[in-house]
Amino acid sequence: MTTAAILVIGDEILSGKTRDQNAHLLISELRALGVSLRRIVVIPDDVEIVAATTRDLAAGHDYVFTSGGIGPTHDDVTIQGIARAFDLSVVRHPDLEAIIRRHFKEGVDESHLRMADIPEGSVLVGAGEMSWPVPACRNVFILPGVPEHFRSKFLAIRERFRVEPFHLRLIYTRQDEFDIAADLTDIAGAHPNVAIGSYPNYDLVEYRVKLTLESKDRAALEEAFTALLTRLDPAQIHETATQ
Amino acid sequence: MTTAAILVIGDEILSGKTRDQNAHLLISELRALGVSLRRIVVIPDDVEIVAATTRDLAAGHDYVFTSGGIGPTHDDVTIQGIARAFDLSVVRHPDLEAIIRRHFKEGVDESHLRMADIPEGSVLVGAGEMSWPVPACRNVFILPGVPEHFRSKFLAIRERFRVEPFHLRLIYTRQDEFDIAADLTDIAGAHPNVAIGSYPNYDLVEYRVKLTLESKDRAALEEAFTALLTRLDPAQIHETATQ
Repeated sequence: MTTAAILVIGDEILSGKTRDQNAHLLISELRALGVSLRRIVVIPDDVEIVAATTRDLAAGHDYVFTSGGIGPTHDDVTIQGIARAFDLSVVRHPDLEAIIRRHFKEGVDESHLRMADIPEGSVLVGAGEMSWPVPACRNVFILPGVPEHFRSKFLAIRERFRVEPFHLRLIYTRQDEFDIAADLTDIAGAHPNVAIGSYPNYDLVEYRVKLTLESKDRAALEEAFTALLTRLDPAQIHETATQ
Repeated sequence: MTTAAILVIGDEILSGKTRDQNAHLLISELRALGVSLRRIVVIPDDVEIVAATTRDLAAGHDYVFTSGGIGPTHDDVTIQGIARAFDLSVVRHPDLEAIIRRHFKEGVDESHLRMADIPEGSVLVGAGEMSWPVPACRNVFILPGVPEHFRSKFLAIRERFRVEPFHLRLIYTRQDEFDIAADLTDIAGAHPNVAIGSYPNYDLVEYRVKLTLESKDRAALEEAFTALLTRLDPAQIHETATQ
């Protein structure tokens, strides 16, 4: 199973000045790509916290996607933090420097050129496909915090991450969660390759519990689905669905 | 500074079946209470991950608020995970058992009573003020995942967490972030009790950068605000604001 983590660097999210849109986008994108998102972490603009969190997430997941903290000001500490996570220097990348010099022409100064500084050994993903590529330091993909830029850059590189899709079956029942808990435990234990979720509903009258069954193995999914259906009261099933 | 972390336990968030509402609510609530939110972590329904993450967050923050994973089914592993974080047993709390027995009367069974099982030594916050109190294991407050319940329970206990408020000053300027980066670094360095944020804006024509200055020390905030204003081009300021 290909796994991923999202690391959002941003005081503005934690202090409620801005609502996160980037993790929200990436949740649905990664799911559609077949990548299993295992962690979302939101941290302050603090270089040591970026370093420690990046190190942990990079070690435990195939991919880490960072959001934010890559501008020119004092609160932009993502590059420095990622470099420190892996004991790397920050170096000026010649290709990024060339892009900046082409853009600012004779007006270029050191504050612009600092945007070309990335952890040594980083590769530029999507170079040639977009005006400003995505630096990747090992398995850490460094994306901007501004939602429009985050979105356009991720969409430009996303096909690199596509693996086999998840399959999903849904059952909506009027039975109470208490009355089916033991059956769910049995079925979940007997079908370890299928993730089974149970979500009570208090808003709608049509059903009381939404059950989700999910797997990359379609045959295993169908087996678990059939096995679970035999345990439920057919008269209480509102509907079933496939996604 | 009183600090907090939010721990969201939920495969349904990571897989995009549900959008988080609880962390979103708590961000604004904690800010209004004067509590500094330092971390949001979203993890899968996995007892070992709940245990390890709870242990880390509880050690590094004054308060941890968990969301989700406290129902009766196999995917509800929050109680077990929090107990494991602190090497505690899970025990049946007599007051919660009494609430359950009053509610279900002669229909009560073991699947209902298991909802009274919480980590040993937990206290019940808000007991007597609401029909089902909030268990707190040390500094970890255990809240439900269903947004309506999460909201009503947090609002019922929130005044316990109130400390002195944050003060916020805003400056909207048409100057470019590159041109003010060095000044921001100076002012941020000279005013360590004031958090200064810089957020470029690409949507609106009125300004290019929103600057935020925030502190619990109002005098320090005003000093930093005045010092920063003297560094900016007055002709380029769109407006200033206080919150």
